[in-house]
Amino acid sequence: MNPAQIIIKKRNREELTQAEIHYFISSFVKDKVEDYQMSAMLMAILLNGMSENEIYSLTKEYIDSGITLTFPESQGRCIDKHSTGGVGDKLSLMIGPLAAECGVMVPMISGRGLGHTGGTLDKLESIPGFQTQISLDRFQKIVRENNFAIIGQSDKIVPADRRIYALRDVTGTVESIPLITASIMSKKIASGVDGLVIDLKVGNGAFIGTVEHAEQLARIMSKIAKDFSKKIIINFTDMNEPLGRYIGNAVEVIEAIEFLKGNMEPDLKEVTFQLVADMLILAGVSENFNEVDIIIDQAIDSGRALERFRKGIELQHGNPEVIDDYSLFPQPKYKIAIYAKQTGYIKNINSKVIGYALIDVKAGRKQLDDTIDHAAGLKLLKKVGDEVTKGESIAELFYDNDHGNKAAKEIENCFEYSEDKITRTSRLLGSYK
Amino acid sequence: MNPAQIIIKKRNREELTQAEIHYFISSFVKDKVEDYQMSAMLMAILLNGMSENEIYSLTKEYIDSGITLTFPESQGRCIDKHSTGGVGDKLSLMIGPLAAECGVMVPMISGRGLGHTGGTLDKLESIPGFQTQISLDRFQKIVRENNFAIIGQSDKIVPADRRIYALRDVTGTVESIPLITASIMSKKIASGVDGLVIDLKVGNGAFIGTVEHAEQLARIMSKIAKDFSKKIIINFTDMNEPLGRYIGNAVEVIEAIEFLKGNMEPDLKEVTFQLVADMLILAGVSENFNEVDIIIDQAIDSGRALERFRKGIELQHGNPEVIDDYSLFPQPKYKIAIYAKQTGYIKNINSKVIGYALIDVKAGRKQLDDTIDHAAGLKLLKKVGDEVTKGESIAELFYDNDHGNKAAKEIENCFEYSEDKITRTSRLLGSYK
Repeated sequence: MNPAQIIIKKRNREELTQAEIHYFISSFVKDKVEDYQMSAMLMAILLNGMSENEIYSLTKEYIDSGITLTFPESQGRCIDKHSTGGVGDKLSLMIGPLAAECGVMVPMISGRGLGHTGGTLDKLESIPGFQTQISLDRFQKIVRENNFAIIGQSDKIVPADRRIYALRDVTGTVESIPLITASIMSKKIASGVDGLVIDLKVGNGAFIGTVEHAEQLARIMSKIAKDFSKKIIINFTDMNEPLGRYIGNAVEVIEAIEFLKGNMEPDLKEVTFQLVADMLILAGVSENFNEVDIIIDQAIDSGRALERFRKGIELQHGNPEVIDDYSLFPQPKYKIAIYAKQTGYIKNINSKVIGYALIDVKAGRKQLDDTIDHAAGLKLLKKVGDEVTKGESIAELFYDNDHGNKAAKEIENCFEYSEDKITRTSRLLGSYK
Repeated sequence: MNPAQIIIKKRNREELTQAEIHYFISSFVKDKVEDYQMSAMLMAILLNGMSENEIYSLTKEYIDSGITLTFPESQGRCIDKHSTGGVGDKLSLMIGPLAAECGVMVPMISGRGLGHTGGTLDKLESIPGFQTQISLDRFQKIVRENNFAIIGQSDKIVPADRRIYALRDVTGTVESIPLITASIMSKKIASGVDGLVIDLKVGNGAFIGTVEHAEQLARIMSKIAKDFSKKIIINFTDMNEPLGRYIGNAVEVIEAIEFLKGNMEPDLKEVTFQLVADMLILAGVSENFNEVDIIIDQAIDSGRALERFRKGIELQHGNPEVIDDYSLFPQPKYKIAIYAKQTGYIKNINSKVIGYALIDVKAGRKQLDDTIDHAAGLKLLKKVGDEVTKGESIAELFYDNDHGNKAAKEIENCFEYSEDKITRTSRLLGSYK
């Protein structure tokens, strides 16, 4: 086969065979298809799309480019959660220990923050000593011992996606349903899960802007999951306003700990309970949603979910004392208040712009090799629906560089106001099962 | 500016500004835009197209990436011919010396094999010692002395196109009207011509499949020529069947020498005479087509065109004795005959498939750095319209690697037969002036 001819076929909107996709991906991993050929193919896929058969083959080739973990002892209870990325999204930090405590095995392989959205690994690394790069053997041992662990991508799992993702980022080929589907599904399937709960974020703070677009992605993800005999539930959740009250790294871990202590922000509780409930249903812990809610409540009320998180921190070499003493986290040097520009009700908070403003104070990164300030971040004192008076403090920015005032100004402009009362709506926008 | 953002703009079908095109091309030349970013852009241009303004800007950036030659002494007689590439297209080898002999200055800057079509430079390099990489000073001197020279693209002339042309070949981004236009027009304009005759190939062996498509390309090429104050005639010629009897490198040079000796295949003669006539008209040698034909005939009959080719070979350090002794060319190790599968008349010979089959025996290249076997190639013993008997030898393949049998089988399948008599048609399909 000839790489250019396969590119031409896709360029001409013809369906690629499994053999052609196999040749193209496996040759790329072996450096026999060049980066510049892969990026031309990626653009052709983005613009011309792929059939379900092609997406299946692509996902399979991604998986086959590396090793696949297995947790046979899970007996169908090995379920992961995947979020498509949002602002203030600390869900994995609560869902890992919570689902684990309720009897699910959760082998989470997470990413770093890029662009305006945060990354679970960056958040966890604000816990002194916490290791996210551990061997796959050790990862599997921890999952078996504590029912959950959260690590970074390994070179051994889906190496094709790792390299293709890096290319997509710099060639304008991120926003493609076939490529997003293959990337997400391959990593989860290779991590050995029996089923998967997807949190598909929709709105200005997410990569997917509309429910219609989200449904297209959900339909194909669901089809691919079935092709690989994996159970799946896909939730659409609202990502116009940041999730919870904190955005950053250390501050989000603290918010997650508070959650597990029972101090739950309503929007965080709504989404977390929904996703954990779906995981318990898929794992067969119970078939009854009311019963599932009680199980989750008890895991928190009893303090057992918190203890499971403490043990998880310990097993990944972090300092578990952070749970009782937040001063052990990196501390911000400066705080600056952000004030309401109007009297009225908060109508909207633009999460995407907040995400980008926080990059200026190093809570996130522009380039993959940028360093992060784990103490930098934002606390929202007011959220959508809250009544405010002009000049009242509505948020606090934590930072330690020269860009605090600029970022604060940008964040101030993220708040939209209304004279009329605003009713907060549910963050749950529906699901695809 | 950010390369990925410019790619995304074109991907989203927005018009690029002159400043954006300038940034992207000039940064690419300075290695600040990577090959993999350029190839994603090329695919986006191929699939989404470009406006006339964008194509003008692209052509201008190509030209401005290097120097522009001038031949002021030509007094309007400096005319080049450009073919859009076909299978068996050795026209430049005859047209260079022939037009030169008739009083036109022909500074030809040619390319290498691209996709399934051959390249004039690869063909010339099968002449022992022949140098296609000579300095521009020397090139201009040879053109002034002998009225023609054929060299490879110089790093100094349109360096942007040189690198982009190479990338297009291996990324399935050849067949794009904006990219073809900018590539051809920039090179010709920078080589200092007063006018240009285009041989726009149409058919399965060409990059352009239909006359309708060819007319689109002709319209935009003509527009760009006028924008840069250059005269232009565009001919559409049929490229369903390979041109002449030989396809390859050394074998095509031999066929060109035979042509200049007066042994002219009818289809080669028809196209060559038309294009040279157009060049003489643009150069103002004559305004009368009958007169022009006589001038061309005499240049061949007298042997002066052949002698001009001999001198051209000498001036470019090739061994001119090849003209009298074809055994001085690289010789193929193996020959294999291809037989008619049916009795009847040959209805069609799929040149594109032949072009790709010949890549397998190294007469062309898959990757930029592949080496070429100059002796490999094909002789067509029968052409469209010829009567054949099943089992009769219709072609001969020359090769020296392990893929001869596979290539021969593919070539065998390129012949289509008819029980009814087939009339050979003219290769001249019309023109755009």
